[in-house]
Amino acid sequence: MNAEIIAIGTELLMGQVVNTNASFLSRELSSLGINVYHQIVVGDNPTRLAEVIEAAEQRSDLIILSGGLGPTKDDITKQVLAEHLNKKLILDKSTMEKITMYHESRKRLMTENNRLQAMVIEESTILKNETGLAAGMFLTQNNQFYVLLPGPPSELEPMFIKEVKPLLMKKNQNETYIVSRVMRFFDIGESQLAAELDDLIEHQENPTLATYAGKHEVTLRLTANGSSEEACYLLLDNMEVSIQKRIGSYFYGYGEDNRLENVVADLLKERKLTLTAAESLTGGAFQSQLTSISGASQYFKGGIVTYSNESKKEILGVSKETIKNEGAVSAQCAIEMAQNAREMFNVDLGLSFTGVAGPDKLENQEVGTVWIGLSVKGQPTFAKEYHLGKGRENNRDRSVMSGLELIRRTLLNLPIHQKVFSGKKVE
Amino acid sequence: MNAEIIAIGTELLMGQVVNTNASFLSRELSSLGINVYHQIVVGDNPTRLAEVIEAAEQRSDLIILSGGLGPTKDDITKQVLAEHLNKKLILDKSTMEKITMYHESRKRLMTENNRLQAMVIEESTILKNETGLAAGMFLTQNNQFYVLLPGPPSELEPMFIKEVKPLLMKKNQNETYIVSRVMRFFDIGESQLAAELDDLIEHQENPTLATYAGKHEVTLRLTANGSSEEACYLLLDNMEVSIQKRIGSYFYGYGEDNRLENVVADLLKERKLTLTAAESLTGGAFQSQLTSISGASQYFKGGIVTYSNESKKEILGVSKETIKNEGAVSAQCAIEMAQNAREMFNVDLGLSFTGVAGPDKLENQEVGTVWIGLSVKGQPTFAKEYHLGKGRENNRDRSVMSGLELIRRTLLNLPIHQKVFSGKKVE
Repeated sequence: MNAEIIAIGTELLMGQVVNTNASFLSRELSSLGINVYHQIVVGDNPTRLAEVIEAAEQRSDLIILSGGLGPTKDDITKQVLAEHLNKKLILDKSTMEKITMYHESRKRLMTENNRLQAMVIEESTILKNETGLAAGMFLTQNNQFYVLLPGPPSELEPMFIKEVKPLLMKKNQNETYIVSRVMRFFDIGESQLAAELDDLIEHQENPTLATYAGKHEVTLRLTANGSSEEACYLLLDNMEVSIQKRIGSYFYGYGEDNRLENVVADLLKERKLTLTAAESLTGGAFQSQLTSISGASQYFKGGIVTYSNESKKEILGVSKETIKNEGAVSAQCAIEMAQNAREMFNVDLGLSFTGVAGPDKLENQEVGTVWIGLSVKGQPTFAKEYHLGKGRENNRDRSVMSGLELIRRTLLNLPIHQKVFSGKKVE
Repeated sequence: MNAEIIAIGTELLMGQVVNTNASFLSRELSSLGINVYHQIVVGDNPTRLAEVIEAAEQRSDLIILSGGLGPTKDDITKQVLAEHLNKKLILDKSTMEKITMYHESRKRLMTENNRLQAMVIEESTILKNETGLAAGMFLTQNNQFYVLLPGPPSELEPMFIKEVKPLLMKKNQNETYIVSRVMRFFDIGESQLAAELDDLIEHQENPTLATYAGKHEVTLRLTANGSSEEACYLLLDNMEVSIQKRIGSYFYGYGEDNRLENVVADLLKERKLTLTAAESLTGGAFQSQLTSISGASQYFKGGIVTYSNESKKEILGVSKETIKNEGAVSAQCAIEMAQNAREMFNVDLGLSFTGVAGPDKLENQEVGTVWIGLSVKGQPTFAKEYHLGKGRENNRDRSVMSGLELIRRTLLNLPIHQKVFSGKKVE
């Protein structure tokens, strides 16, 4: 089966929005063994949209249309496709109910446009939208498959994973099984990872290997095909052994959505441990990321953001001498922050962040210098130094990830180099 | 003149690389008044590339090809275009010299492939590459323009700005100026905004109006063309008056990147005010967003995350009676959190968030129920109730935005409906 992705939206043609949907869908389709030969972008123009659909039908089995399902006059995707396929638009009751409830609960006026959003192409399978109002659609005509998805990635991505993928796996069923495994790595760059696996990537056949650089992490997708699921798993297991041997020390987990915070959350829950944080340069970003996971109240009771030196001293009780003699960006400050926060919130683990986010130097220290402290009940509190880089956003994000990794390694007794205890370097 | 952008590269079709070149080129072309109606991606396949070039010639005056100019076997762009146009490839001496020097200075062996990189399409204008080896090309045939650019953005972007733009400005010379203005709105959905401006959008000519739904906000782009910049500004000003009259109460600022937190940060700095926050359901997300802006230390000293009832009582001093009788998700709790945080951090404004992020109900209150409290020095502390929706991420994000908007409205003395003071509803 081969596929074509058509994104609809004048904002794409104006360059206001980058077409990340096309790369997301391409990656997902490739993992299903479906080849993508064309990605197209057109504006909110019925004639041009109909033309590109027609061209796609000449060459592609599966046509995925993204965008243009919203409530405004610009949104024309389902109307154009319905007319092109000679089908009617009909009201979908459950979407209508959802839209009505949405407006009632917010006490907002419903317009004719909102009602239009509940119209779907007849004879199509409705794809549920968990994160928005526009329903997706899946339909078949003349041995061709059409998928309509909403434009916002926050709606398109879960809809594809939960609704479209299972349907495509059924349609694409032939005698070969395709099984993928995603391995996740932190603290290694994509190019270093590729270099370590150079020969494996060069001679890849079955399983295939695809690296993907996410935000501060790299994922590696292994895709095997075989005559049975078991055969696929065996191929994946064998390949994984070779990979773990080379870069296992950077490996932290499996799975598409299984980010470092999920791995840490699971560890904390498993061991019934509670955690707090005292944040300076990250300004609440660590706690925000931790509580983005539902059920966070099991291991997180609260924490503190001490952005200024005064709040570090007056609220968190960091000693005046430490700030004066060592500075806020120091091992000793990170250690006191972690320990005092742990005692203040009466929990098992206290994590702290202090450093120079940028763009300016602080205490004459380079942008990107960060100390992360960790205090575990019954163990000596320590801190670790990082030199992260230049950009403010990068430094904050990487600090959060590094803090998560520090907890993971500590809980699993994995090596942590260059720990500092109360200003004294050991190891 | 209208343009079509064709990106060539299997890595784009595999989703390994996001097509940022298309959005860069689209933005640049739009600023030149050149309309882009199609963006295309194809792989490193001669037949399919020739086909999309042919299709582009049927509908576009200017065809920009990006990628596939490198030294590997996959790089086929100039070969395919030359053959398609019945032109020869000839050696470009200056490119050859550059490639030779590059290899000599690095003591690297030159291969036949490297020599191929110095071949260009006959009769084309060579576009200099300041940041790489592959030369770009500009050529005209049958009143159609073709531009060939290298794939890496670090090479494509400077080449377009320095080499292509001046050429296009000559070719596209007419007397019209184009000026855009972006207006930003919060607390109004895209569909409601479109409904309010229905007739303006319906009859748009000059300026044109384009709505775009961002994350929890809507932007409206007005684009005017005229014989002078002044003429454009006059058209924009007139249109803005009509827009402000209808939906001015939702308007919060101008500009492409000027988000609500920037507007609030500027207000705080302007008035030399300091701010803290006490966060429950948002878990640090508000403080994180605030400190993502550099220079945040001018108005933010720190804050607290009180995720559990114990931390609200023990650390922030919310009264036991309030938690017991009113619950943590209540006006009174939000008010005490805001006021106590403001006193704890000794600042001018204290903001608080308490509510039900989801997925589960809390204290038998619906998911999406949120109270935001605001305590301003010298004024009675108040709270406002929100009913935000279903998704956890949505509820957290919208709470943060609503908190920012509450500060903005309070500082600017704009109306805030349904304020509650110490449990008592007024207004």
